Amino acid sequence: MSEHPRWTLDPDRALPAEPTRRAIAREIHGRTADLPIVSMHGHVDAGTLARDEAFGDAAELFVIPDHYLLRMLVSQGVPHHELGIPPRDGGPVQHDRREIWRRFCEHWRAFRGTPTRYWLEHELVEVFGVSRAPSAATADLLYDELLETLARPEFRIRALFERFGIEVLGTTDSATSALADHATLRRDGWGDRVVPTFRPDVLFHPDGAGWRAAIDELSAASGVEVGDQAGFLEALRERRRYFVAAGARATDHGHRTPDTTPLPAEEAQRLFAAALRGPLGVREAEAYAAHMLFESARMSLEDGLVMQLHPGVVRDHSAQVAGRYGSDLGFDIPRGVEFTRALRPLLDAVGHDPRFRLILFTVDETAYSRELAPLAGAYPSVLLGAPWWFLDAPGGLARFRELTTETAGFYNTSGFVDDTRAFASIPARHDLARRIDAGYLAKLVAEHRLGLDEAIETAIDLTVTLPRAAYARPGDGG
Amino acid sequence: MSEHPRWTLDPDRALPAEPTRRAIAREIHGRTADLPIVSMHGHVDAGTLARDEAFGDAAELFVIPDHYLLRMLVSQGVPHHELGIPPRDGGPVQHDRREIWRRFCEHWRAFRGTPTRYWLEHELVEVFGVSRAPSAATADLLYDELLETLARPEFRIRALFERFGIEVLGTTDSATSALADHATLRRDGWGDRVVPTFRPDVLFHPDGAGWRAAIDELSAASGVEVGDQAGFLEALRERRRYFVAAGARATDHGHRTPDTTPLPAEEAQRLFAAALRGPLGVREAEAYAAHMLFESARMSLEDGLVMQLHPGVVRDHSAQVAGRYGSDLGFDIPRGVEFTRALRPLLDAVGHDPRFRLILFTVDETAYSRELAPLAGAYPSVLLGAPWWFLDAPGGLARFRELTTETAGFYNTSGFVDDTRAFASIPARHDLARRIDAGYLAKLVAEHRLGLDEAIETAIDLTVTLPRAAYARPGDGG
Amino acid sequence: MSEHPRWTLDPDRALPAEPTRRAIAREIHGRTADLPIVSMHGHVDAGTLARDEAFGDAAELFVIPDHYLLRMLVSQGVPHHELGIPPRDGGPVQHDRREIWRRFCEHWRAFRGTPTRYWLEHELVEVFGVSRAPSAATADLLYDELLETLARPEFRIRALFERFGIEVLGTTDSATSALADHATLRRDGWGDRVVPTFRPDVLFHPDGAGWRAAIDELSAASGVEVGDQAGFLEALRERRRYFVAAGARATDHGHRTPDTTPLPAEEAQRLFAAALRGPLGVREAEAYAAHMLFESARMSLEDGLVMQLHPGVVRDHSAQVAGRYGSDLGFDIPRGVEFTRALRPLLDAVGHDPRFRLILFTVDETAYSRELAPLAGAYPSVLLGAPWWFLDAPGGLARFRELTTETAGFYNTSGFVDDTRAFASIPARHDLARRIDAGYLAKLVAEHRLGLDEAIETAIDLTVTLPRAAYARPGDGG
Repeated sequence: MSEHPRWTLDPDRALPAEPTRRAIAREIHGRTADLPIVSMHGHVDAGTLARDEAFGDAAELFVIPDHYLLRMLVSQGVPHHELGIPPRDGGPVQHDRREIWRRFCEHWRAFRGTPTRYWLEHELVEVFGVSRAPSAATADLLYDELLETLARPEFRIRALFERFGIEVLGTTDSATSALADHATLRRDGWGDRVVPTFRPDVLFHPDGAGWRAAIDELSAASGVEVGDQAGFLEALRERRRYFVAAGARATDHGHRTPDTTPLPAEEAQRLFAAALRGPLGVREAEAYAAHMLFESARMSLEDGLVMQLHPGVVRDHSAQVAGRYGSDLGFDIPRGVEFTRALRPLLDAVGHDPRFRLILFTVDETAYSRELAPLAGAYPSVLLGAPWWFLDAPGGLARFRELTTETAGFYNTSGFVDDTRAFASIPARHDLARRIDAGYLAKLVAEHRLGLDEAIETAIDLTVTLPRAAYARPGDGG
Repeated sequence: MSEHPRWTLDPDRALPAEPTRRAIAREIHGRTADLPIVSMHGHVDAGTLARDEAFGDAAELFVIPDHYLLRMLVSQGVPHHELGIPPRDGGPVQHDRREIWRRFCEHWRAFRGTPTRYWLEHELVEVFGVSRAPSAATADLLYDELLETLARPEFRIRALFERFGIEVLGTTDSATSALADHATLRRDGWGDRVVPTFRPDVLFHPDGAGWRAAIDELSAASGVEVGDQAGFLEALRERRRYFVAAGARATDHGHRTPDTTPLPAEEAQRLFAAALRGPLGVREAEAYAAHMLFESARMSLEDGLVMQLHPGVVRDHSAQVAGRYGSDLGFDIPRGVEFTRALRPLLDAVGHDPRFRLILFTVDETAYSRELAPLAGAYPSVLLGAPWWFLDAPGGLARFRELTTETAGFYNTSGFVDDTRAFASIPARHDLARRIDAGYLAKLVAEHRLGLDEAIETAIDLTVTLPRAAYARPGDGG
Repeated sequence: MSEHPRWTLDPDRALPAEPTRRAIAREIHGRTADLPIVSMHGHVDAGTLARDEAFGDAAELFVIPDHYLLRMLVSQGVPHHELGIPPRDGGPVQHDRREIWRRFCEHWRAFRGTPTRYWLEHELVEVFGVSRAPSAATADLLYDELLETLARPEFRIRALFERFGIEVLGTTDSATSALADHATLRRDGWGDRVVPTFRPDVLFHPDGAGWRAAIDELSAASGVEVGDQAGFLEALRERRRYFVAAGARATDHGHRTPDTTPLPAEEAQRLFAAALRGPLGVREAEAYAAHMLFESARMSLEDGLVMQLHPGVVRDHSAQVAGRYGSDLGFDIPRGVEFTRALRPLLDAVGHDPRFRLILFTVDETAYSRELAPLAGAYPSVLLGAPWWFLDAPGGLARFRELTTETAGFYNTSGFVDDTRAFASIPARHDLARRIDAGYLAKLVAEHRLGLDEAIETAIDLTVTLPRAAYARPGDGG
């Protein structure tokens, strides 16, 4: 390998290699590259924005909070505690951030061909102006460079937010949150730029350890004494009103399956009462969760919150990792998902209602052409969200268009939605999606299946028009 | 967008963009472009041909009868009744054809990237010589142009049939049909050009509302009093003989699953008798349907009718749409299908019998490489049909070849089979399939995996040789 | 078709057609083309190497032993007995090898687009220097040419082994084998070049006809009287020690599903005892097989044998073929496989143990991006094996990289592993995999997602570094 070349990004990166398509894709991408970022489904902590935090060092910024990086390093034999994740039993943990960063740099080759590699290159070069690619040899140099850079005021989070051209950022918030950080942001004039999202998952799964405590939090937060299913629904409505008042546009639901079969009222009440006495079995809990998706859809008719559904992930697949270190550390593994029959009850009830909108995500690609595109290409309320999680990658984004467009077209999709935990990766992710969409549209143009003017209009719509409309509450006329 | 450009089709449309591949693909396509059309699995109403009908107007020709268009417009918020589909409750419906056409033209962008767009361009430009692309601005102009064109004698259906170069057209007919239109056609010398297909679905599903009435129709049509399972089988045999005499080549089966498990004779009789007393439950009805697929295969040994199977669609997914407007209006949604175990009983019984042929279709692409290609690449009786329904599209056609050829080759497929309701789209569909196959073959040639002479021979075989052979009744020596 | 052209292979075959990518791919492939072959999972009979056999004739070499060819010819209507497979009932069988070869040559077109065609071209031209492509017209000529060639000493199997540059070849051996051929090879100084693999499938499936006899063989081979589950485990350990002493690196497991749920010790013992009295039902047998996968993983912790798992095939799909001719004749058909939940018990127990390594194979591609890449991209013990069986083909290999790399990277895969029965196809298979990987890496380079130096390093790693490391027993420091 050549020695420490000055690091740059090629302007044609991630565009198709074939010259005819590349030339068209470049032209299309040129029309969307500088458009604002609409980022409606992220996991950035509103508190960092409320406090306008600085990022401390390279390990804290890139490695420790990013389960994409953690899992890859773990897969290469580096255990979590060597990456700064403390074992719950108080066992040893690496505190030296420089050492953590070295570990990452030594394993840079493991990321070849992954979106993590692509995003990190973008971040390191474009956002932080790092001079060399990570390696065992450059680790210390990069660590020092970044330490200096991150201390500068123009690298605090609000400055980056402006520099990135983010129009609006949706956070993900517990249904019982007081949204204090959002209040701070509103006071600072950032209320339209950072909006909360209502996520009630823990409340909908009465087999989880946290359910009982969450119900108590719900009582406290809503001012409704939650003692039965009716009280539960009332408290949820109250909390949704609170979120709407704070600017929320959407709810978000991470369920094991997309089942939406409603229960008779008495059965829902019976399960709720049983759960108050102790965790339900998996089967009963899933039936209850399905019922609550159905109830949530009904509430959306009233308050206009857009419903997002992300099913099909086995959380904490490794009980060993979960027990030793905790959750969200890279050991959530997808499983097959069935949408056609699962969504039928909900769509039959509200799928044609103009007050309702449902945005669907999957990590099971087999559903794209078989189930999701046919559903979105028929029901007026259904939109396909962007490729999620493992699929938010050059190939994953391309396959999404290839497998959905012929049935659903472009205009039954939400446009690009990122799912970021790492704030600094937001522009990299949006730019990549714009490049892949440009490449796909360029194929249609090069094969004479679409005019260039149509392709450019479509690219712009996918970038800003469609995501703005998808997350406009239907009651607001979106 | 430029103002009303004269509309033309590029001769290289849907061929690969990369110049090396395109040049080869162009040469291959040049050798198949003018070959006759073998269209053995359509849904064109034989009556329109018997009466040599004229198409009335643009809405009647393109929008109202085509569930591909309807569902896309519904997905964009235009309800069925605004598109000329009358609600069953007598509610308001748009009768003004021009208004319906306008609705469609306004939503032209929703079809970008879809096969509907591709086919319509072909039809509008090549078949009907329309001067401009649809848009809100051109809707009236196009409507008037088409009104005039459709009134001309060379645009009646028989004239188009000749112009399209259709060698033979298979219609889809109820198993109880008297085939009166086919008799008319035969009298007019069109008996070899339009042949019926035997479709007994309603008779095989004793949970459906129409089963009981269909059994009575079967008694009347066959002259066999159908009072038990033995009588039912006898009546079916009689009807199949009638269809064979009328030129039929094949049966067609649209089942929920491809299960072919036979029942003991007493159990089949028990279910039949129970069904006479009232609709069966879903589980019993599906067991009965599976049994009848097995029985149908046995009948094919006797009469040589080729068996087509199209499983895996949830019909009338939206009870709301079905209840309000009826069936076949764009709300049938695919689900996952398992073939390997489901087909085992049938294939074990007759899969090696030279008198039997089974053509398999799917809307679940995951079965292509995993199940369908291995089955077709082993059993002499099994052929893979062409990409069906949602998958009959540029990408869907390409993926079919990519995912089946390496295991099944080309010579265990049926060649192209369209599934058209819209008569005027037949040449567009066949031309598209020829282009995509040319592009796939060109890839093999460009990668030195196939000689150009072999590729051309294969393309011709896929276009005419294989479909002719696939639908020749084995008893006829095909 | 032109008449008998001199047959050659294009040096750019199976590289991408697009010139930019091809130039890069050619450069990458140039760096791996001459590297040694690491072939750790084949089905070559060690006896042929121990005896340094000569191949007799074209039918014996290419047709009769290769279930890929047999099934394709059967699918085209040539029954097994016409291809030299004797019916068990003593019915007629074709003994004339020349006639069998003619049958194959007449159906050469059926293999267009298949890997069989690609491999055979490579073998016929590169290995055996045949002058013309097979056809009805050339069959006799080729048969005679090959008869002469195969009689020459440089075409005996050990000479070919040297010429192919095989570094090490893993065979697949019954768990009860005395490994006599391997002992011969060791005495001849070939002990490091041909190593056995421990395959206990028949012992783990107590519903099969052969289980009881295999248990008796196990008692005899191990010197442990196997009368209960404890004795069974002890005998397996003994046999594994024997294989390790003979150079084995790995075990191999072909199960119906990848279920790894362990049973309570008493339940395992109860099932074993019941099996001694007669074959178990499918459900109990599968539960027992799952338990034995779990036990095998525990044994790997002790002896360091790498565990290979190949699930998801319905063996002997056609009872007619199995009953008439036997097994392994092309009628094994894949079915859908679920890995995420099935592997959880095993991975939870040993997935983070540095003494353990699990290499996963699939013929269900839907698991690549959804389940397999996420598992390999998280658990340190899990590696993805190469595309297996039907998927070991140009498109199958390309899709494997496309569907796994973005989540698992390259360095959680095993590098190329062939699954050969036909010894002479080994170099063709490895060369094809190197070409397809070069093409995939060239795409990353051409899209500026990877440096050329990184791509070359990765290609070399996939070819030799990774397979060597994957099959090094962890206890050996691999």
